[in-house]
Parts: sequence; structure tokens; C-alpha cells
Amino acid sequence: MQFSAPLALKSGARLADYRLAYETYGKLNERRDNAVLVCHALNASHHVAGLDEQGRLGWWDNLVGPGKPLDTDRFFVIGVNNPGSCFGSTGPMDLNPATGRAWGADFPVQTVEDWVDAQVRLIDALGIERLAAVVGGSLGGMQALAWTLRHPQRLRHCIAVATAPNLSAQNIAFNEVARRAIVTDPDFHGGHFYEHGVVPKRGLRVARMIGHITYLAGDAMESKFGRELRAAELAYSTQDIEFQIESYLRHQGDKFSEYFDANTYLLITRALDYFDPAREHGGDLSRAFAVARDNRFLLVSFSTDWRFSPARSREIVKALVDNRIGVSYAEIDAPHGHDAFLLDDPRYHGVMRAYFSRIANEGL
Amino acid sequence: MQFSAPLALKSGARLADYRLAYETYGKLNERRDNAVLVCHALNASHHVAGLDEQGRLGWWDNLVGPGKPLDTDRFFVIGVNNPGSCFGSTGPMDLNPATGRAWGADFPVQTVEDWVDAQVRLIDALGIERLAAVVGGSLGGMQALAWTLRHPQRLRHCIAVATAPNLSAQNIAFNEVARRAIVTDPDFHGGHFYEHGVVPKRGLRVARMIGHITYLAGDAMESKFGRELRAAELAYSTQDIEFQIESYLRHQGDKFSEYFDANTYLLITRALDYFDPAREHGGDLSRAFAVARDNRFLLVSFSTDWRFSPARSREIVKALVDNRIGVSYAEIDAPHGHDAFLLDDPRYHGVMRAYFSRIANEGL
Repeated sequence: MQFSAPLALKSGARLADYRLAYETYGKLNERRDNAVLVCHALNASHHVAGLDEQGRLGWWDNLVGPGKPLDTDRFFVIGVNNPGSCFGSTGPMDLNPATGRAWGADFPVQTVEDWVDAQVRLIDALGIERLAAVVGGSLGGMQALAWTLRHPQRLRHCIAVATAPNLSAQNIAFNEVARRAIVTDPDFHGGHFYEHGVVPKRGLRVARMIGHITYLAGDAMESKFGRELRAAELAYSTQDIEFQIESYLRHQGDKFSEYFDANTYLLITRALDYFDPAREHGGDLSRAFAVARDNRFLLVSFSTDWRFSPARSREIVKALVDNRIGVSYAEIDAPHGHDAFLLDDPRYHGVMRAYFSRIANEGL
Repeated sequence: MQFSAPLALKSGARLADYRLAYETYGKLNERRDNAVLVCHALNASHHVAGLDEQGRLGWWDNLVGPGKPLDTDRFFVIGVNNPGSCFGSTGPMDLNPATGRAWGADFPVQTVEDWVDAQVRLIDALGIERLAAVVGGSLGGMQALAWTLRHPQRLRHCIAVATAPNLSAQNIAFNEVARRAIVTDPDFHGGHFYEHGVVPKRGLRVARMIGHITYLAGDAMESKFGRELRAAELAYSTQDIEFQIESYLRHQGDKFSEYFDANTYLLITRALDYFDPAREHGGDLSRAFAVARDNRFLLVSFSTDWRFSPARSREIVKALVDNRIGVSYAEIDAPHGHDAFLLDDPRYHGVMRAYFSRIANEGL
């Protein structure tokens, strides 16, 4: 969908005449009150469920679909790709109207709040006054939270999974290393690599490898790979693969570098860094959530998630309780680390199913 | 010191005619039984204490010196730089006699056991039959452990700080990402960058930034840097520094890339990966330590060290106890993560001082 009115960004810049890719599942009911918006994290898109034209399964297909926890027989589900991403919405690969060249590194810096404002325009265009819920995991969870802070009257429920009220210094540190790997790749060309017919794959690979380490729980990595060797004998080489974990990581890095845009990686990790709703309230998260008194919340965290640990979700729960806002909180004892929010854990999906049932039964 | 007899390496290769840089502090007593060998970790050297010719303080100067926990008024302390390192011992920057070019990436792959064998030759040359102790932290601790496994009759005490019986999958994963950053830097030239007059600084910087994140405790990083901004206002930039933690990491990466050799980085991280004394005993660490019955051990770990957590040290303690070997174990509640082994924490240094006093009083 094309939007001609410029979007005023938090940085002060404006994004003029932009396109949002989106998909919908299920049917909007007559009262237009059964819509659920799904927000994506770093490397996902609007393609949430089912098969796309290339036969690829949606990134949250285990959660979203007919009879699934987010039941598309009952809900009208909207997936949207955020501006700055590389899966169909306006992003760094598009032409900058001011220069006639691809935006590249000059694409306006995006924030979680900017994405939420763009998403509001999408539901405006779809004729939806109030969403039944906004749901997301990780960076998607931050978007769900930001909806309640910026547009609390435009949604009833916020479902934020495996997320945090802001990044820790260590989180920012990992993002920064990944960005440095990309930016210092000679094929990055200051972010204008498209014109040179190259892609900074070396940087993207390293960035993805770092990311993967932080998505997986140490113990899960240990039980899946441990110190297992690739061959029967050690090769005694500094560059060949000796351990299975190396093979796995290199494969993940290679795959990622084939499809993901380097400028998008920079933009999305920066949006993560910047998200910090308490900052405008003197660091007081409870004051930040005072505006969300009419919303209801479900927060879910995973015991082995060391990227966004349960303690980070509990900070949000506390801020909500301080405001006497209704919040359900589930801390799932799951072995998969941060990645757990994408996996089909029966306890996790049980909680999600129950909460969405409650939404369906109460208001619709 | 030059060694003409080839050193047989675990890989099957031989290192012929090599040089070991070393320093000593204090005096060897008449009975030649007060010598303590200090083993270094990734980026340190034989320069353990005091000032060198360039006025640089030794890397463990807070621990080693007159009146310090490892008291050079009582002990004869030896610091040695391992083969493959870049601080004076034979390494990748030296000429490969077979080709007349610098070794570069062809320098024989080193293991912890190879280094220990080289160190044995050094104490042979110094006329020392049995060391009072071998002490090291992190990778240095692995060397101290390996002494007891390969040459138990050549030392009395093993003091292993902030170490592990092998690397976890996550540890290997971090090493592998760092290596990929170096190896894929176009200035690496397959490890023969010396001939091209360049240094793969981009890769070294990223490698060091990753390393630094794992050396520091998350909470310490949080209290030191948190989300503190560098400037009063956000710049909204994907490439400029916004947060103090970014500034700190970039600085660490820059500094490191100025002095550390890329091939040495590969060699040393590989030695870490390979260390696994239980492997030859069907994964049974207790069986591995059966040979060390006449040695005595001090193990120290730090509560916030998530690289080599206290649980890893306890695995070693258990293996020693299984063999009824005398072991003292201190788990220090310190906030500094893995780096704590280099810092002057009074509880930590108190333990070290007491243990070295015991050694001095018992045998010497």
C-alpha cells in the first residue's frame, strides 16, 4: 500500500511517499473489532503465516492460522513489513527521490515509534478504528508496547513476548560489533554498495553469526552441538571447520548474507538501541505507562533467554502493576533461549491460545 | 632463549629451531625449589611484572612483585611467551626456514600441551628440576592444568584461575566468529599479509570487540556504561557513536589492532578450542587427573564470569576430589566477569597470598 503523506520521524526527518507491504489472514468482522496486528523483529516480514508465492512458510506460521493459538477463523490478522526493511516496504534499496540514486546509508533512521506511526496509517487505510490486539516478539514486542504508549486508544490488548523495556549495554555492544563488521567491509562502500554491484557479505555473515550466538541459550547450544567434531580426526587448522558449532554458524551466516540487506541491518539494530520509553519520563518506566490505563497486557518471557531475560519483562510487569493496569505474565521454562518466541513450545502456545481465546470471547 | 632441538607438536608437525622470550623476577634459591612459572592467556606475554624497556607495566604486576601475593622476595618467578605468540617468541611473523618467507598462516598449529612442553624445556635450561608452582588465569590456567597432566613430577602446585576443563560450544562459537572476521578481511591475504605491507585491522578490531563483551560481566557493563549517551542529544545515525559503550568498544578494538598479530589470534583461539584433557579418557575428567596424585591445586573462579563460569571450575574440583587430590577452591563474589582474574580484588588476592605463603612455608 502506498502512502503519499510524509511520515514525520522521531529524528526530525520525513519519509515522503512510501510503500508498506502487508498481508492479511482471516476476515475482518462487521464490527471491525477482530483485527490483530503482528509486528516483526529483525529479519522477518509481513509474511506471517501460510505459504507465499515462492512456497515459503510464514515466520510465525506455528502460531497464526486456522485453529492455531492466534486463530484466523476468529481473528483478522495483519502482517506488515516496516519501512527500512528489505522485504517489500520502502527501504534503503529504493530510489531516494531527492537524488535519483538508491537511498543506501542515507535512508532516514527509523525508530520503533516511527514504525508504529506507519502501522497506524495502515490500519486507518484498512478502516480499523481499534485493534483487538497488537502482538510481537523481541523487537516486535517493543512495537506492541509502543502502540500502548503512543496510541493507547487504537488497541485493546498488547501482547509482548521475549522483549525488554530497552537494550542493556551488553545488548547494544553486540549490535555495535555487528554493525562495525558490516560498515568496515570494503564492499559496504559507505552504504552505497548497490551502485557497485556488490554486497558486504563478509560483514553480514559475521553480524549474523554474532546474532545467532545471542539468540540461542548456552545450554541448548551445548546439548545440540557441544564439542562434537565434524570429522573423525582433528585437522589442526586455524581456518578449516573442526567443530559442528562452527559449521552451523557459518551456514547461518552464509544463508543470511544471501537475502538480507546490509543497510536494513544497520537501521533495525539502531531502532533496537534507541527504544527506551522511560527516557522521556526521567527513566521512570511506570510513568511512561500511565497513558496505557485502558489497555490490557500479556507478557511472556523464557527462562533461558539471556538476550532479553525474564528480569527485563518483569520490569515492564512492575511498571504496569504500578499503574494498576491489567497484566498477565508467563515466564516459560524453555530451553531455547531468545529463539523460543518463534518455536512451538506447548506451554508457551497454551498461554497464547488462552489469552487470544479470552480476547475473542470478551469483546468481539 | 634459542632451542635447536625440534619440538614435536600434538598435530604431528615439528617446530624446529625456535626462540622463547622470557623474563624472571626474584632469585632462584640454592635448592632451586622456589621457582614459579606464570603462563599467559590470549594477549599477554612473558612481561609479567615491573616495567619493561618501553616503560610498560607487566600484565600481572598487581599480583607479582616484592611483598605482593606472589612475592618475588621469596619466589623466583618466570614469565614466558609461548611459541606462536607475537611478543618475542618464535611466531607467524618469523621466517619459515623451509620457504624463506614469513610463516604467516603456515605457522604450525599450537596446543596448550605444546606450550607446556616448550615451557618444560625452558625450565630444563634454567636448571630447575621441579617448580614450586605453575600459575595462570584463563588460557594460562589451562596450561597450569596441563602441566599436572603431562609432567606431574615437574611441579608441586597448580594454581588455575578463571579457567575451564574445555571450551563450551558457546565459547567456541565466539572464537569462530572472531576468526571469521579476521580471515575474511581482504587485508588478511590468506595469512600472508606481511608481504603485502598491510594488517587485517578491520578483522582484528571486530575480534577484539567480541572478546571484550565476553570478558566483562553484563551487570558490570551495565553499571559502568548503561545506556549513557556520548552527546547531549541523539544524532540518529547508524554509523556514528551514540552510546558510551560503543565508544569504549571501538577504542578497545582500535588499540588491539595496532599491536596484536592476526595469525597469533587465530593460533591462540584454536589452542583454546582444542584443549580438552578428558577427551583422551572417554570424556572422563576424573580419569584424566589420575596422573596428578602428587600435585596440589588451588582453583579460583569469579561469580560473574560467564565465559568460564564457576561451574566449569567446579568440574575440575570434582575430578580432583574423585582422585583424593588436595585441592583448595575459592569462588570469589566479584563483579568484573572474566576480567576479574587480572584485577586487584582484595578477596581474590587474599586467597592467592595465603596459598603462596603456604607453599613458601611448607617446602622451601
